[in-house]
Amino acid sequence: MTSTALTGIGLLVTHDPEFGELRDAALIIDEDRIAWIGQPADVPAADDATDLDGRCVIPGFVDSHTHLVFAGDRAPEFEARMAGQPYTAGGIQSTVAATRAASDDELTAHAATLLAEMLASGTTTTEIKTGYGLSTVDEQRSAQVAARLSDDVTFLGAHVVPPEYADRPEDYVALVTGPMLDACAPHCRWIDVFCDRGAFDADQVRAILTAGAARGLGLRVHANQLAHGPGVQLAVELGAASADHCTHLSDADVQALAGSATVATLLPGAEFSTRSPYPDARLLLDAGVTVALATDCNPGSSYTSNMAFCIALAVREMGMTPAEALWAASAGGARALRRDDVGVIAVGARADLVALRAPSPVHLAYRPGVPLVEATWKDGQPISARL
Amino acid sequence: MTSTALTGIGLLVTHDPEFGELRDAALIIDEDRIAWIGQPADVPAADDATDLDGRCVIPGFVDSHTHLVFAGDRAPEFEARMAGQPYTAGGIQSTVAATRAASDDELTAHAATLLAEMLASGTTTTEIKTGYGLSTVDEQRSAQVAARLSDDVTFLGAHVVPPEYADRPEDYVALVTGPMLDACAPHCRWIDVFCDRGAFDADQVRAILTAGAARGLGLRVHANQLAHGPGVQLAVELGAASADHCTHLSDADVQALAGSATVATLLPGAEFSTRSPYPDARLLLDAGVTVALATDCNPGSSYTSNMAFCIALAVREMGMTPAEALWAASAGGARALRRDDVGVIAVGARADLVALRAPSPVHLAYRPGVPLVEATWKDGQPISARL
Repeated sequence: MTSTALTGIGLLVTHDPEFGELRDAALIIDEDRIAWIGQPADVPAADDATDLDGRCVIPGFVDSHTHLVFAGDRAPEFEARMAGQPYTAGGIQSTVAATRAASDDELTAHAATLLAEMLASGTTTTEIKTGYGLSTVDEQRSAQVAARLSDDVTFLGAHVVPPEYADRPEDYVALVTGPMLDACAPHCRWIDVFCDRGAFDADQVRAILTAGAARGLGLRVHANQLAHGPGVQLAVELGAASADHCTHLSDADVQALAGSATVATLLPGAEFSTRSPYPDARLLLDAGVTVALATDCNPGSSYTSNMAFCIALAVREMGMTPAEALWAASAGGARALRRDDVGVIAVGARADLVALRAPSPVHLAYRPGVPLVEATWKDGQPISARL
Repeated sequence: MTSTALTGIGLLVTHDPEFGELRDAALIIDEDRIAWIGQPADVPAADDATDLDGRCVIPGFVDSHTHLVFAGDRAPEFEARMAGQPYTAGGIQSTVAATRAASDDELTAHAATLLAEMLASGTTTTEIKTGYGLSTVDEQRSAQVAARLSDDVTFLGAHVVPPEYADRPEDYVALVTGPMLDACAPHCRWIDVFCDRGAFDADQVRAILTAGAARGLGLRVHANQLAHGPGVQLAVELGAASADHCTHLSDADVQALAGSATVATLLPGAEFSTRSPYPDARLLLDAGVTVALATDCNPGSSYTSNMAFCIALAVREMGMTPAEALWAASAGGARALRRDDVGVIAVGARADLVALRAPSPVHLAYRPGVPLVEATWKDGQPISARL
């Protein structure tokens, strides 16, 4: 197959300034790219054609924050938390133990299953972090597993300090910025650090991100999830592509983000599954901050992989309009990954598309929990919604 | 096909006192019923066999409160509400206009599409209300459409007072309890009334339910959704099978429910989609009230059809454990419909089953928004999860 015409699109939401939203549209996929967008009457010849019978088409979701490389689950911890136990970063250690014990093939198969689930639910670009290895060999294995599945792999050796370094965290920072970074950097595009209570402090974060930048990695920060802290300010100061979580922000944090190229990536699945207050997306948007939505898919604090669910939460809980939430879940995620080839339906962009069983993407929030993704195309290839 | 063995069930959650939860189980479906439950080593001969490869099996969900007979949607109203407009019962009128204008075939096709969506998501029993016709002919048409799709059809002529009776509501009550009831009762098992601010008051509710009971219909009440009111007390006094919503309860309401056979049916999708405070399921459960969960699927206040989403909300927002929420979404719904043939996996019960792509039903709450229903059987027939 070289080119396919998608016809009968009832509503095409492009996120492209030239095209905006088109009613009764068509487009041409050429190999892995979008080659043409326009009215059905003008559609050029193509090798193949699919009639979408009036369905709505949107850009594939861009999930810029996931932790897909792990083993085991933490359902009992979830049940305990829902019964009143607080969430802390400490639970990560149980996943670290399971991940270290798993083979590369097991880790790959599990991550691939989650990725297939995400593709079927409309997510066509997925960043994947390491961070459940926390030894040089296990972080390297995690990075290699992630690199088989994603172009956007993030080294998160600085997720938490592992138990064997509990009484000498500075030695762990030296490991992360030294041999572990050496082992992982060749497989990664990004470096991230969990800057929060119970994780890493400002000096440690600065040392880790600076070391990563020196190896050519782009910067990301887990910032201000569990409490106020220096994460957002550091992210802006160091030019990070994204500050993620942003649950507890001061006015100065909001102003810093607004004056920067750092995206605020909000992860409402984490607030849902830890029964925490949600970040104030409305405040950020009104201040001019670029906002992305991501799932944070991980076995501890947010085991959803479903971007539509996060859109529904963003509208219900965070003051976003349905249109803002859709943009944040696709174009916003692309900004957070500093990519211009995804998150938008534009000539030359990747043919990453979602057809909805709904007349408009408002239904993603209006019909919460309902699987509305009927078909997904990634790099021009159709993916069944059935796993 | 006469009998099928389901083998390789990793975890079987029955809600049956004899069997409880079984690890490594098998069961036999004989025609539309469950004929045998036990260990794989003991499984009797069957005409056919399906190996579930360790999957978890639960009873099909019983959704005891839906409004599936309608035309049109109210996405703009949803968007306006999320931008700050309050929810009132008034928006129902726009769906009434669209429903009256739709043909029987259009109403049937639309309801059947929603029902198929629900089956694919694990709901095998669905109560369906009228209530968007609000004229004798349109309520009768609605009841007939619903009766093609469900054994549990509810006459809800007393949903709101239609505009043409706005200045003479008592005439509308006379219509509902007279000609409209005559026209609808033959197609219905239940009668329901919306007892709330902006809908019907205590005297009207009593008149309507009493008239329905005289025609042999079982009683249900939309009670205490928008404000404190007499709905719950009336439901208990009149022996209703269920008081639905129960969002605003006094201590006396809770005690009345606890001492009765009336189920409290909670509809967290409505609170989610109207951004309202959730009912306190924990308080009801601790008082000894029987609690059901249902979707309230309707185009105004809760356009979700997804019971797993309601389970996740019940755990996150209403203080239910995952096990309590699962029970409420299946066995609880069956109690609310006064049925003993569904909501449970027991010898002699209907073979209404769900296989989950998860090791336990805790994942329905632990993995919110993720479509985990891999297969559904209704009356012993397998249903694809793909629409």
